[in-house]
Amino acid sequence: MKKTIEAIAPVDKGIGNDVQAYLNTLTKPKGSLGRLESLAVQLGEITSHHFPVVSPPGIIVFAADHGIADEGVSAYPKEVTSQMVHNFLQGGAAINVLAEQIGAMLQIVDVGVCSPIDNGNLITKKIRYGTANFLYEDAMSKKEAVVAIEVGIEVATKLIQDGAKCILPGEMGIGNTTSSSAILAVLSQEDISTIVGSGTGISEEQRKHKVEIIQRAIKTRNPDQEDVLDILAKVGGLEIAGMTGAILGAASKKTPIIIDGFISTIAALVAVKLCKDVKDYLIIGHQSEERGHQIAVKMLECKPVLDLQLRLGEGTGAALAFPLLDASVKILQNMATFSSAGVTEKEK
Amino acid sequence: MKKTIEAIAPVDKGIGNDVQAYLNTLTKPKGSLGRLESLAVQLGEITSHHFPVVSPPGIIVFAADHGIADEGVSAYPKEVTSQMVHNFLQGGAAINVLAEQIGAMLQIVDVGVCSPIDNGNLITKKIRYGTANFLYEDAMSKKEAVVAIEVGIEVATKLIQDGAKCILPGEMGIGNTTSSSAILAVLSQEDISTIVGSGTGISEEQRKHKVEIIQRAIKTRNPDQEDVLDILAKVGGLEIAGMTGAILGAASKKTPIIIDGFISTIAALVAVKLCKDVKDYLIIGHQSEERGHQIAVKMLECKPVLDLQLRLGEGTGAALAFPLLDASVKILQNMATFSSAGVTEKEK
Repeated sequence: MKKTIEAIAPVDKGIGNDVQAYLNTLTKPKGSLGRLESLAVQLGEITSHHFPVVSPPGIIVFAADHGIADEGVSAYPKEVTSQMVHNFLQGGAAINVLAEQIGAMLQIVDVGVCSPIDNGNLITKKIRYGTANFLYEDAMSKKEAVVAIEVGIEVATKLIQDGAKCILPGEMGIGNTTSSSAILAVLSQEDISTIVGSGTGISEEQRKHKVEIIQRAIKTRNPDQEDVLDILAKVGGLEIAGMTGAILGAASKKTPIIIDGFISTIAALVAVKLCKDVKDYLIIGHQSEERGHQIAVKMLECKPVLDLQLRLGEGTGAALAFPLLDASVKILQNMATFSSAGVTEKEK
Repeated sequence: MKKTIEAIAPVDKGIGNDVQAYLNTLTKPKGSLGRLESLAVQLGEITSHHFPVVSPPGIIVFAADHGIADEGVSAYPKEVTSQMVHNFLQGGAAINVLAEQIGAMLQIVDVGVCSPIDNGNLITKKIRYGTANFLYEDAMSKKEAVVAIEVGIEVATKLIQDGAKCILPGEMGIGNTTSSSAILAVLSQEDISTIVGSGTGISEEQRKHKVEIIQRAIKTRNPDQEDVLDILAKVGGLEIAGMTGAILGAASKKTPIIIDGFISTIAALVAVKLCKDVKDYLIIGHQSEERGHQIAVKMLECKPVLDLQLRLGEGTGAALAFPLLDASVKILQNMATFSSAGVTEKEK
């Protein structure tokens, strides 16, 4: 982990200026492609290329279970985590459909599902059989958190080596909005009730219960606000740590990262706490419906690309944003300039 | 035109209910795909298919000149219209790049460019060499407006026959935000200064001049607010009428229509005035930066899919929204259900 963090350099703002200057020579009113232009600039800065490429994208879905799920904080029973991993491996989940649509390389990584899963297409890096219930004990040890981060680094680095031009971290883990809300509560110092939303679909009564559980857990675990690894170990999740690793790994390889919704934005926050330069490598794919997401996004000073009222996870919102990044680099690569097309520029 | 309008039926709400019910059986929390789900429902309603298909899309760019451009209302000189048509034909414009990205059928239609253009790939349906300057005379006759609408109907119908599964009308015409603002001012009865934005990039001083020109023109032309063809003829544009026709043609063939920005939304408003059932066939691709767009969108009671600060036109915002529609139908087609994947449903 330390070596990877040391390898992360600030993005190349000089290339960004060049890209914007070149965009201004293309046959369109200056700035008229709005966010597409700023995405092209950012992708130039990240990759240090005047004509960056983002295809094929690499999606990595990290799966793990959460001891805290035993407290009745989720709309779904715990076994759904492993059932959904089987669904991913059989190609039936939303992320499979969207990965296929955008021609993505898709990998599923078991970093801590409660049951053993035997499948040749699964990357098995199980660190433990789910986290502990952090209402009563630390979710995991600091060492386990670091190992999970290192799994993420390893998988992302390998995928980039194999050809992925951007990384989209996704997740599956019943109970992980509870863990993410707890991490965010500690990092942001915001009121927990403001942060906690309905997750994948709990009632208002269940939401209040969830708030109370998180409040009690944070009080008992008492994570050190200044030590993000302590927070991750005490109230985090293995798949969150895995995503943090994938983000660090991608940034160290000057590879753009498209962030999905609430859970992955929390993983990004953790990564940025470990290395502030990571921030400029992130593109937030969409604004999630989950309440805490807005707070997390604000902390990252990013503007989500899409706002489609999604609250699914798996990396779906990142996959849906991908075609816009791809469009931005294709505009850069393939549009004619005013002079090459013989089009008169704006007067004065 | 009359026959096409008579052929437009209300969309099939029953199919929409079926699609939503089926979406609820797929392996994701109910409603968690947000706007993607409502798009799938709408596409079912429009096409009367439980598994609608939107690919390949058909983009039709209508080009025409505007006499009102002589009043210095645009950032670009008039000759840019024909120069951009050449650019479209050579594949160098933004819409060419985006059409290629989404595998679209792309057609360029000359309904009234000021200069003759000789090119085998251009659909030449020139009704007149640009509209008249509507500060001094009607932009065109009512008959010419109807002919332009009929060209749009014909081209869209043919493209659907040739395989296009949805229609994306686009436009090129220096001066057309002025014409669109004038149409909107009459239809909405909003203050012209509220409607008029900076178009493709004019200064505040130029904007004030544009407002004044439109005010004077509407006063002199005095279009009948109750007669949308009168408005279109007096202050409209040939490419706007062409787009209106394409929209009517697509709706008559139960084909979804993705609307781009300000100009195409005005064409959609005109189409809805001619036949109110058209409204349910429309998907507004994005929220444009042009001020009047918000007003027009509100009148159509639609919510744009994207908000990327675009202000280019050509159909670009519609093309950028297309992958999301395609994703929504692929989700419907390809995701596993809870029972087929053996995933436990939400408790109670």
